Amino acid sequence: MLIIAEKINATRKSVKRAVEEKDAEFLRQLALTQIEAGADYVDVNVATGGGSENEPVTMAWAVGVIQEAVDKPLVIDSADPATLRAGLEASSGSVAMINSVNGETDRLDAVLGLAGEFGSPVVALAMDDRGIPNEVDVRLEICARIAERAAGMGVPQERLFFDPLVVPVSTDCNQGCVTLDTLRGIKERLPQAKTTVGLSNVSFGLPSRGLVNRTLLVMAIAAGLDSAIVDPTDKELMAAVYAGEAVAGRDEYCMQYIQASRSGMLS
Amino acid sequence: MLIIAEKINATRKSVKRAVEEKDAEFLRQLALTQIEAGADYVDVNVATGGGSENEPVTMAWAVGVIQEAVDKPLVIDSADPATLRAGLEASSGSVAMINSVNGETDRLDAVLGLAGEFGSPVVALAMDDRGIPNEVDVRLEICARIAERAAGMGVPQERLFFDPLVVPVSTDCNQGCVTLDTLRGIKERLPQAKTTVGLSNVSFGLPSRGLVNRTLLVMAIAAGLDSAIVDPTDKELMAAVYAGEAVAGRDEYCMQYIQASRSGMLS
Repeated sequence: MLIIAEKINATRKSVKRAVEEKDAEFLRQLALTQIEAGADYVDVNVATGGGSENEPVTMAWAVGVIQEAVDKPLVIDSADPATLRAGLEASSGSVAMINSVNGETDRLDAVLGLAGEFGSPVVALAMDDRGIPNEVDVRLEICARIAERAAGMGVPQERLFFDPLVVPVSTDCNQGCVTLDTLRGIKERLPQAKTTVGLSNVSFGLPSRGLVNRTLLVMAIAAGLDSAIVDPTDKELMAAVYAGEAVAGRDEYCMQYIQASRSGMLS
Repeated sequence: MLIIAEKINATRKSVKRAVEEKDAEFLRQLALTQIEAGADYVDVNVATGGGSENEPVTMAWAVGVIQEAVDKPLVIDSADPATLRAGLEASSGSVAMINSVNGETDRLDAVLGLAGEFGSPVVALAMDDRGIPNEVDVRLEICARIAERAAGMGVPQERLFFDPLVVPVSTDCNQGCVTLDTLRGIKERLPQAKTTVGLSNVSFGLPSRGLVNRTLLVMAIAAGLDSAIVDPTDKELMAAVYAGEAVAGRDEYCMQYIQASRSGMLS
């Protein structure tokens, strides 16, 4: 499974500071730490919430800086198409991923256009102008609509990473099943498409949030999940990934699981 | 989910000693400890491997002794129908469960006959004279055959607890999926029947076995598992059960999860 490292996100206080003070070494180190922990992609989100006029410039700077430290591809994470473009243009070597598009009419063509132009994979959220639907079928309709529009703009299904979306189970206990059923529905209806998920919403309002997050992750692996947007330095979560892959038949002879154990990653 | 406590099993050295020396206090304490940890049923297996001629007498003694300490129902666990009968006859109060029947022609009628006579729930294994089939369909055929024979002997589907069976993933990485697919198949084809599972085989030959066991358990909960035969004093496993139930939509408002947290059971 592909691990997308989530920690370079300016909604986090330490990253916000690093972005505002142009602390290149902090970002390089945070990228490196996450790669060493097992990440395949490094997400980069530099939106500090202080107005987006400088976001494209900041993104280009951050991408350049992080690429000096790591060889793995980046994920350009922004709500702003101009920032996505700046990040993609600054990427060299591996093709960066876009995070994210959703069914909102306004942004759909702009973001898919970038994906077509740069040959990028794209995270696609199962929501639209109406917000996150409670129903599996409505989420699946949005995914199908995004896939159809993507095909029309030269972005093949296999470059789409659909996120079924996660809502707190503390307020609606059915929402874990809605996420898992949506995930299974995507794998059935759009068989070439990939899937991904951000976990932490599921445990909002609950104690021992890490336990709840990795429980959903393990269930999602059994449902066919292809990647996840997580903190790869969370050892318990990564141990759950290795065990999940082994039990779900995605780790022949459990070689990766055994290797992870030998490297001290399971305890 | 129903928790069947597995520790009173004479294949374990300390239990073997207690059974051989008729150490009633040891068995009472082990039953009580498991109930306090959250068990709903207490499995009792007194087969010490030294010949079964005394097993019925020993079972009757053990059931009597354990019932003095706990109010929860017992699970009479033996390969020997005479021992099952002795345990069922010694049970008072709650109806005991039988562990187990399988598709083997010889024992099928004897064990189902006891279930009909005593009104007992029965653990039914998805295997027969040929051993444990590798294929989901063959396991499901055996379950259907057991259910049909049970109905003919007055044991309704809802009293059957089918165990899809677990084989080590270290030797065949598909076996986790075979267990989960069999479980889902049972829930679909025999909708009134219950399911249960013993976990520990899955992790045979692997490091960090507890991690692998609870990973399969969480996946099985998402697939609709009704009960599990486990060590309820394993805190990490029980935490996984609480989290699994919450994420799988089986714990309204996550009340049981939150209560478990307050009782210190999640950490």
